[in-house]
Amino acid sequence: MEKKLKKWQGWVLFGGTMIAVFLLGLIVSSLMERRAEVVSVFNNKRTEFTDSIIAQNERFKADYPREYETWSMTEDTSFVSKYNSSQEVDVLEARPEMVVLWAGYAFSRHYNTPRGHKHALEDMRKILRTGNPGIDGDGDMQPATCWTCKGPDVPRMMRELSASKSVFDPANFYAKKWSELGAEEVNTIGCSDCHDARTMDLRPARPALYEAWAQVGKDVRKASHQEMRSLVCAQCHTEYYFIKPDDPKNPGKANYLVFPQHYGMTCEDAEKWFDEIDFYDYIHPLSGTKILKAQHPGYEIALQGIHGQRGVSCADCHMPYKQEGGVKYTDHHIMSPLANIDRTCQTCHRQDAEVLRQNVYERQEKCNEVRDRAEQELARAHFEAKFIIDNGATEAELKPIQALLRKSQWRWDYAIASHGATFHAPQEVTRLLSHAVDFAQQARLLIAKVAAKHGHIGDIPVPDYSTKAKAQAAIGLDMQKLNSKKQQFLETIVPKWIEEAKKNGKIVEI
Amino acid sequence: MEKKLKKWQGWVLFGGTMIAVFLLGLIVSSLMERRAEVVSVFNNKRTEFTDSIIAQNERFKADYPREYETWSMTEDTSFVSKYNSSQEVDVLEARPEMVVLWAGYAFSRHYNTPRGHKHALEDMRKILRTGNPGIDGDGDMQPATCWTCKGPDVPRMMRELSASKSVFDPANFYAKKWSELGAEEVNTIGCSDCHDARTMDLRPARPALYEAWAQVGKDVRKASHQEMRSLVCAQCHTEYYFIKPDDPKNPGKANYLVFPQHYGMTCEDAEKWFDEIDFYDYIHPLSGTKILKAQHPGYEIALQGIHGQRGVSCADCHMPYKQEGGVKYTDHHIMSPLANIDRTCQTCHRQDAEVLRQNVYERQEKCNEVRDRAEQELARAHFEAKFIIDNGATEAELKPIQALLRKSQWRWDYAIASHGATFHAPQEVTRLLSHAVDFAQQARLLIAKVAAKHGHIGDIPVPDYSTKAKAQAAIGLDMQKLNSKKQQFLETIVPKWIEEAKKNGKIVEI
Repeated sequence: MEKKLKKWQGWVLFGGTMIAVFLLGLIVSSLMERRAEVVSVFNNKRTEFTDSIIAQNERFKADYPREYETWSMTEDTSFVSKYNSSQEVDVLEARPEMVVLWAGYAFSRHYNTPRGHKHALEDMRKILRTGNPGIDGDGDMQPATCWTCKGPDVPRMMRELSASKSVFDPANFYAKKWSELGAEEVNTIGCSDCHDARTMDLRPARPALYEAWAQVGKDVRKASHQEMRSLVCAQCHTEYYFIKPDDPKNPGKANYLVFPQHYGMTCEDAEKWFDEIDFYDYIHPLSGTKILKAQHPGYEIALQGIHGQRGVSCADCHMPYKQEGGVKYTDHHIMSPLANIDRTCQTCHRQDAEVLRQNVYERQEKCNEVRDRAEQELARAHFEAKFIIDNGATEAELKPIQALLRKSQWRWDYAIASHGATFHAPQEVTRLLSHAVDFAQQARLLIAKVAAKHGHIGDIPVPDYSTKAKAQAAIGLDMQKLNSKKQQFLETIVPKWIEEAKKNGKIVEI
Repeated sequence: MEKKLKKWQGWVLFGGTMIAVFLLGLIVSSLMERRAEVVSVFNNKRTEFTDSIIAQNERFKADYPREYETWSMTEDTSFVSKYNSSQEVDVLEARPEMVVLWAGYAFSRHYNTPRGHKHALEDMRKILRTGNPGIDGDGDMQPATCWTCKGPDVPRMMRELSASKSVFDPANFYAKKWSELGAEEVNTIGCSDCHDARTMDLRPARPALYEAWAQVGKDVRKASHQEMRSLVCAQCHTEYYFIKPDDPKNPGKANYLVFPQHYGMTCEDAEKWFDEIDFYDYIHPLSGTKILKAQHPGYEIALQGIHGQRGVSCADCHMPYKQEGGVKYTDHHIMSPLANIDRTCQTCHRQDAEVLRQNVYERQEKCNEVRDRAEQELARAHFEAKFIIDNGATEAELKPIQALLRKSQWRWDYAIASHGATFHAPQEVTRLLSHAVDFAQQARLLIAKVAAKHGHIGDIPVPDYSTKAKAQAAIGLDMQKLNSKKQQFLETIVPKWIEEAKKNGKIVEI
C-alpha cells in the first residue's frame, strides 16, 4: 500500500513537472519572440484604406503607432556630428563662394543644411528660393513641380489634376504655378509617399522614377523588396530637371520633371544627356556660362560606393531595425546612421563605434579639402570671366572658357549637392571634385591669356566676396527686400493657405 | 551452448567494431589535420644555423622546401591583370610625360614595372639608373645605399663593414660606392631579409626601419606578430632619402638611409620634414625646381586605406596561406592578390571573384584618370617654366612657381611610386593626385602671367614629348650612348663580379 502510494505520488510529481516546464516554455517563447510587427498589425488593423494614397499622415497613427511615432521624431533636430547636423546651418554663410557660383539662380539667396522630413513643407515655404507669391508681381517664381517631393498631397493632386480620370498623368500638375497649390500641399513627407496605403507595401508614389526606368527598359514594379528599400528614397533623392516651358521638342510638357538617367547613373552620363539636349538651368550673369544645377543625386552617388555596390539599401542604414519588447520594426526616424552606430554600422562591422565614426569623418575631410579648392577656383573664375567680358573678350574667346566652367561647376555641384555623398562614395566624390578644380583652373588659365591679349597683364581684380553678405552684394542681390517680402508672405499668404486647407478637410488634426 | 556461443560472437563483433572505428578515427584525424608546418619542420630540421643572417637563400631549401619553392616562383612573370603586370613594361614608353618630370634624374632614363623579388639583383644591374661603373669615368653614379633593399648580403655586409664588431652600424656600408659592393651583393631578396635564420622568427634585417621607429619613441622589436607580417615589407616598401654627402648637420653620414617619418606617415607629414631640412633629391633642369623624388611609400599608403586601418597585414593578401595535403604554410610567391582571389580577398569577402576584381579595377581607373591629368599638367609646366626663365623671368617671379611645382610633383610621385597604391588607399591617392593637378595648374597660371609681363602673350611653345624617344631627346639624353655603355657594363663588369663572388664562396650553387 505504501509502495503504491509512492508510485502514485511519483506520477503526480512527474506530471506536475511536465506541466510546469511546458508553461515555462510558453512564457519564455513569448518573451523571446521577435515577431515581425506586421503580423500583429495586420491582424488588429482598425482602419482599412481602400485608396492607395492617403495624404494625411495622422490617419496612420492608430494602426502603425511605432512607425508613426518614430516618423514624428524627424522633427527632432538635435543630432549634430562633425560634418552632419540636423540643426539648420546657413551654408552660404559658411562658404560664401557658393553665393557667387549660384549668382542668377535662387540658390544664391538662401541655402541651408537639410532638416528632417517633418520640416519639409515649413522649410519650403520660408526659404527665399520659393519667392513670395501674392506679395508682388514677380514673387511667383517657381512652378508646381517644386512641390513634387514635399509630401503625399503631391501624388493625390497629380491624380486629381490628371486630364483623364483613368490615367495617372502629372502633366497638369507640373504645368501649374507653385502658389496655385499652396492650399493643397499641406501634409509633409510621410506614409503614402513610400507605402501603398491599402497594403503598406513599399511603392514610390511619384511618376518620374517609373518614367526614368521605363526609358531604359526597366520596371520599378519588378524591383526586389531590398531594392524598394532604396527606391522609395530614390524617387526624390536623385538628380532631376524640369523641361523648359518653351522647349519645342516637348509641347505640353512645361516644367515636367525628368531624371537624366538616359545614358546611365554617373555624373558624366547625366552630363552627356544634358549636352545632347543642350540643357541648362540658368545662364550665369557673371561669366555667361550655361550652368547645370545639380539636384541632390543621392541615389546615384550611393550606387558608386561600396555599400551601394554590395546591395546595402538606404533603409538599412537610415532606417535601421528597432526593438520594443518582442516587436521588431523599422525606425522611421530617418537620419544620419552616425546617430545609431550600434544599430547601423555595427550590424555588419565589428569595430568600436568611435573607430567607425572617425573612419567616416576621415573620408569626409579628404573630400571637403578638395571641395573647398573647387569652390575657391570656380568663384574666382566667374568674376575673372566677367572681367574679360567687360574688357572686350570676343564670343570665340569666351566659348571654350564657358565650356570649361560648365563642366567644372556641374562636377562640383553633383559632388556636393546630395546628403552624405562624401561617405557614400568617397573616392568618386574626390574624383569629381578633382575634375572640378581641374576644369576651373583650365578656365582661369585661358582667361588670363585672353585678358593679356586685351591689354590686362597680371592678377585680375575681383570684388570682395569673403562673407555671405559681401558676396550677395557683389552679385547684386537686395537681401533686405527679399527677406522683408518673404516675411510678409509667411505672415499673410501662408496662413490663408492653411486655413483654406483646413476648411476643405485637407488637414487632419489629432 | 548455442546461446553462449552467440554471446561470445556478439562481444567479438562489438570489440572488432570498436577497434575499426578507432583506427578509422586515427586515419581521418591524420587526413584532416591542418597542423602548422612549423611544428614538423622544427622537429626535423637538418641544419641548425648559429648566425641570424644567412645570405645564401639556397641554404634554406632543405629545411623549408615549400617556402623555398614558392619563393623561387617569384621568378615567374606570367601574371597579368588590367593594371598590374609581372611582365616588364616600359612605363616611360607608356607615359612619356614621366621622362620630362624626372629630367635631370636617372629615372628619366629607364623606369619599368616591377618584377618578382627573384629578379631584383638582375634588374638592378641592367637598369640604366645604376650607370655603368668601370666603363667610363662618370658611370659610377650611385652610392652603395642603392643596394639596401636588394638582398640578405646587405645586412651581412653592413655588419662586416661596421666600425666596431660589437655594434651593428651601417654608416660605412652607405658611404661606399655602388660598384664597390658588386661582388658582394649576389643573393637576391630572400630568407634572411625577413627571418632570423636561427629561429625563423620574423625580423626586418635593415636598420633604417628600427631607426625611424626609435626616432618617434617606438620599438620595432615590440611589434606584434601581425604587425611584423607588414613590417618585414615596410623595411623596403617605404619612402626614404639619403643624407647628402655634404650635409654639415650630419657629418660622417654620407648617403645614410633615412625614413622621413618624423612627423607622421602621410605625404604631407613627410613633406613637412623635407621642407624643414631644406631637402631635395635633384634640381629640375627645366624649371629649376628643387624636386623631392618619392620612393615607393607602399607601407605608408597602405596605412591610409581601410585594409591597413583594419589591421590587415601585407602578408595576409600578398602571401596568403596555402595548403598541401595536411600542411598549411605561407605562400612565399609574393605577388598581386588578384592572382589568388580565392585565397586572398575571399578569405574575408563573400563576393564572386569577378566582382571583387572589377571593384579593384574601378578604383584604379578612377585614380589613373586623375594621375594622367597630373602628369600632363606637370610636364607642360616644367617646359613652360623653362620658357619664362629663358625669357627673363626674375628669381622673385620664379620662386612661387617653383614652390608650387615642388608641391605638385611630390604629391604626384608619392601617389604613383608605390605598388598597388590605387587599391591600397583609393581615396587618399585620388586626393593627392587632385592636389598635384591643382598645384601644377596654379603654377601654370603664374607662369602665363609672368610670360605676359615679359612680352609673351598666348600659349607657351613646348617641344614634342609625345613618345619616350622624343621626350628623352627633348631633355637632352643620349640614349644610344647610355644603352651601349650599359651593355658593355653587363658584358664585362658584371661577369667579373659574379666570378669573384663564386670564388669567395658568396654564391651557393644547388
